[in-house]
Amino acid sequence: MRSDLSGLRVTIVGLGLIGGSLGLAFRKTGIRRITGVGRREESWKRAVSLQACHVGTTSLEEGVRGANLVILCAPARQILALLSAISPFLEKGAVVTDVGSTKEAIVSALNELPPTVQVMGGHPMAGKELGGLENAEAGLFTGRPFVLCPLKRTSPGTVALIEEIVRRIGALPVIMDAACHDRAVSRISHIPYVTSLALYNLALSGRLAGDPDFSLASSGFRSATRLARSPEEMSLDILLTNSDNIAAGIRRLEEYLHQFASRIEKGDVSWLKDQILRARTALDGEAED
Amino acid sequence: MRSDLSGLRVTIVGLGLIGGSLGLAFRKTGIRRITGVGRREESWKRAVSLQACHVGTTSLEEGVRGANLVILCAPARQILALLSAISPFLEKGAVVTDVGSTKEAIVSALNELPPTVQVMGGHPMAGKELGGLENAEAGLFTGRPFVLCPLKRTSPGTVALIEEIVRRIGALPVIMDAACHDRAVSRISHIPYVTSLALYNLALSGRLAGDPDFSLASSGFRSATRLARSPEEMSLDILLTNSDNIAAGIRRLEEYLHQFASRIEKGDVSWLKDQILRARTALDGEAED
Repeated sequence: MRSDLSGLRVTIVGLGLIGGSLGLAFRKTGIRRITGVGRREESWKRAVSLQACHVGTTSLEEGVRGANLVILCAPARQILALLSAISPFLEKGAVVTDVGSTKEAIVSALNELPPTVQVMGGHPMAGKELGGLENAEAGLFTGRPFVLCPLKRTSPGTVALIEEIVRRIGALPVIMDAACHDRAVSRISHIPYVTSLALYNLALSGRLAGDPDFSLASSGFRSATRLARSPEEMSLDILLTNSDNIAAGIRRLEEYLHQFASRIEKGDVSWLKDQILRARTALDGEAED
Repeated sequence: MRSDLSGLRVTIVGLGLIGGSLGLAFRKTGIRRITGVGRREESWKRAVSLQACHVGTTSLEEGVRGANLVILCAPARQILALLSAISPFLEKGAVVTDVGSTKEAIVSALNELPPTVQVMGGHPMAGKELGGLENAEAGLFTGRPFVLCPLKRTSPGTVALIEEIVRRIGALPVIMDAACHDRAVSRISHIPYVTSLALYNLALSGRLAGDPDFSLASSGFRSATRLARSPEEMSLDILLTNSDNIAAGIRRLEEYLHQFASRIEKGDVSWLKDQILRARTALDGEAED
């Protein structure tokens, strides 16, 4: 089934890397009415000139009224605030979704919207080292999982519509419970972010002690700490809206590291070998996924 | 000063990524006699055909006799074993150096060589995700720091010669104390390696619990865990020959993570913001170095 998406009136709130890329990708599907809402006039004007949206505004009310699909593209805590703010302006039957990095808190807030609108949580597993509208591209979602979290109140028609849109932009829709999503991303994204901060902190302690840490750092260090370059607001919002999972994961990591240090001190070759090989086996498994 | 290196008779023991790349780079400097020592006939023959050396052998004795520069390119514990093994065959006045990932233990072992030879520890801060001779390239060292650890017994002439060779292959010689090197690389390389194993371990625990960790993982996770792809033997040797620094660094990391988890649980926004910004400031500083 390929539905005709041309009648959709889509509003994208937030015109950064993800919002801009969605706009570019949507245009390629034949959607003819994309409104971009930016915080500053400059933002939506640039989005229009980059063809990430057809028209733009700085007014949430103006942007949301008349839309039958509203997508919130912002850091998680901003999405929570936006949901309250747009609520009075939503048309009956409009579908509201988002691309926030964490899902439980957002899905709860989506559930508070009037029963006259449809709701769905979303999270495209796609990104880039450099954020911002200027790095947006239509192909950002190609081949990437796009997590969708329907609520109990979400109609089957809404699920089907969003799945169809996700497929049309080249992504792979993955229906998932918000709690399961938040646990998984805590381990594959949020805790790796925290460790990258921790590794920086450690290297800084070396610099303060007069050691040449940063000047010797090569590509391995840059890879291991790449996530520390994530946008600040997005990162802070992740830490604050997925705190239980992240804290629990950090505790596990601590225990593991504690054991690792003891085994190194004991020179426990067979345990260390085993750990090295376990990760390599996982690498092979990952390639299969 | 550009010395004429054409009279050097160089022997490279170990024909992997680094040994092979050194051979390719040396040829470009005009060195006309490079002998490759491989564990298997196949290895040195491939190195000869790739022009990483002029001739080859599987015999350490044959490879080392007659050489006036011997470079050991192997995992750290193998270098320690090789130093004992080559000792009886070294010509008077020969210079022995290495490219091992850790330096204190190797520098101590270099010091045990007969006083008739010259010694110098070395470590090029260059690498690649994919190891092995087939990935060797002459440009691997271009613009990268190449740490040199002279011993008390090392003559000024030997220091100057090795510095000159390092410059000729496009690298930046950095004279450094072995202890300082090992502390610094524990923080910028060895502990990031350990955290990448720890992150895999954590993601594996998610998979075992039925969560979709690996299937959602995107480029951020791959960057954060790239170091887990390091060659097994090299990694194990690093853990075993830099154990004090690595264990001490892990303890520091543990403390930091412990505090991080508490602050997340408390929702301490200003502390978390500060940590995020500290890493970003370090990133800016790193770019300057």
